[in-house]
Amino acid sequence: MSHQKRESRRDAGRARGAPIVEAVLSRTLEELAESGLEGLSVERIARRAEVNKTSVYRRWPTRGELVAAALEQVLDGLAAQVPDTGSLRGDLLGMLEGVATLASGPTGRAVVRAALSPSSQQSVASLAARRLKAHAEAPGRALVARARRRGEWRAGASRELLLSVLVGGVLHRALLENQPVTRRWLASLVDQVLRGVMPSATRSR
Amino acid sequence: MSHQKRESRRDAGRARGAPIVEAVLSRTLEELAESGLEGLSVERIARRAEVNKTSVYRRWPTRGELVAAALEQVLDGLAAQVPDTGSLRGDLLGMLEGVATLASGPTGRAVVRAALSPSSQQSVASLAARRLKAHAEAPGRALVARARRRGEWRAGASRELLLSVLVGGVLHRALLENQPVTRRWLASLVDQVLRGVMPSATRSR
Repeated sequence: MSHQKRESRRDAGRARGAPIVEAVLSRTLEELAESGLEGLSVERIARRAEVNKTSVYRRWPTRGELVAAALEQVLDGLAAQVPDTGSLRGDLLGMLEGVATLASGPTGRAVVRAALSPSSQQSVASLAARRLKAHAEAPGRALVARARRRGEWRAGASRELLLSVLVGGVLHRALLENQPVTRRWLASLVDQVLRGVMPSATRSR
Repeated sequence: MSHQKRESRRDAGRARGAPIVEAVLSRTLEELAESGLEGLSVERIARRAEVNKTSVYRRWPTRGELVAAALEQVLDGLAAQVPDTGSLRGDLLGMLEGVATLASGPTGRAVVRAALSPSSQQSVASLAARRLKAHAEAPGRALVARARRRGEWRAGASRELLLSVLVGGVLHRALLENQPVTRRWLASLVDQVLRGVMPSATRSR
């Protein structure tokens, strides 16, 4: 295809820029899965997305910005999946199904690997982590607010701890134990975390 | 103990190969932290441990065996730390302090990275994971058996889920959120996981 044709076709389809963004971010996730943060090449991403490298740099001036944007897109997909089911249990199950699907595929593995990159890549990884943390909080807050209104939330329980143990538990199973995360396993996880481990009588505090 | 006494004791131990094993496994963990599973070189490990490559291969015929042995050494260190404090809360806190220390250092990061290695390394990673899983179960079982005897264990609670959410929660905080795992944070984690998130009255099941 001639350079000119490619340009005009691209312009027509991408008048508002959204498809370019989508293409670049999807290719970024693929690169992350294949090469890790260490091997991630903006040039190769641009080539695979069929855009100019300068267009990538104009929008995302650093590799950290690009990776953060790609991960935010993943999180947006997850957040959109958090349902309002009418119960804390149902909402958490809905949220965790998205986490489990992500964690069981190449993108989830790549995202966690990227966060654990060697120190040479830590500035990129920690920029992405800070951006993601801010980004990930809204759906969790909304879910807990609904639970409080329904009287399903014990005074003093921590939303941050709840999400850490649930997400951490799913990642532990999918990535470290390499076990399938079934709906049934997720339900046991949520039930135990909501209910606790000790019998009521012994819970003195 | 006098220097001389210590020396002669070490010689006796060295005759049985223990210090060689220790040196090789420690260098293996260092290599893992520096180069990852992908870059791990048995030759370099042997050189750094000042032993012959053939002595390494005689004891650990494959890279998988060597990595599994190094990780088992790490777990043995953790298992030795699980105390019998007289309460489930205290035992879990003691156990998690070891996990937190490991997760916050280069070895912990390397171990988790190794488990998430690209598919080319998955045979090594999964051999290590299987060996470790078997290895890690005994201390957890003993801890839960003590809790049951004390009446601190709700019928139907799952030991495996408990350990997944606790260990997963610590790894999530230390490695993904890059936040310090303090004693105080660990205590909140254990308290919430033991007690649950919902108020007793709403726990219908």
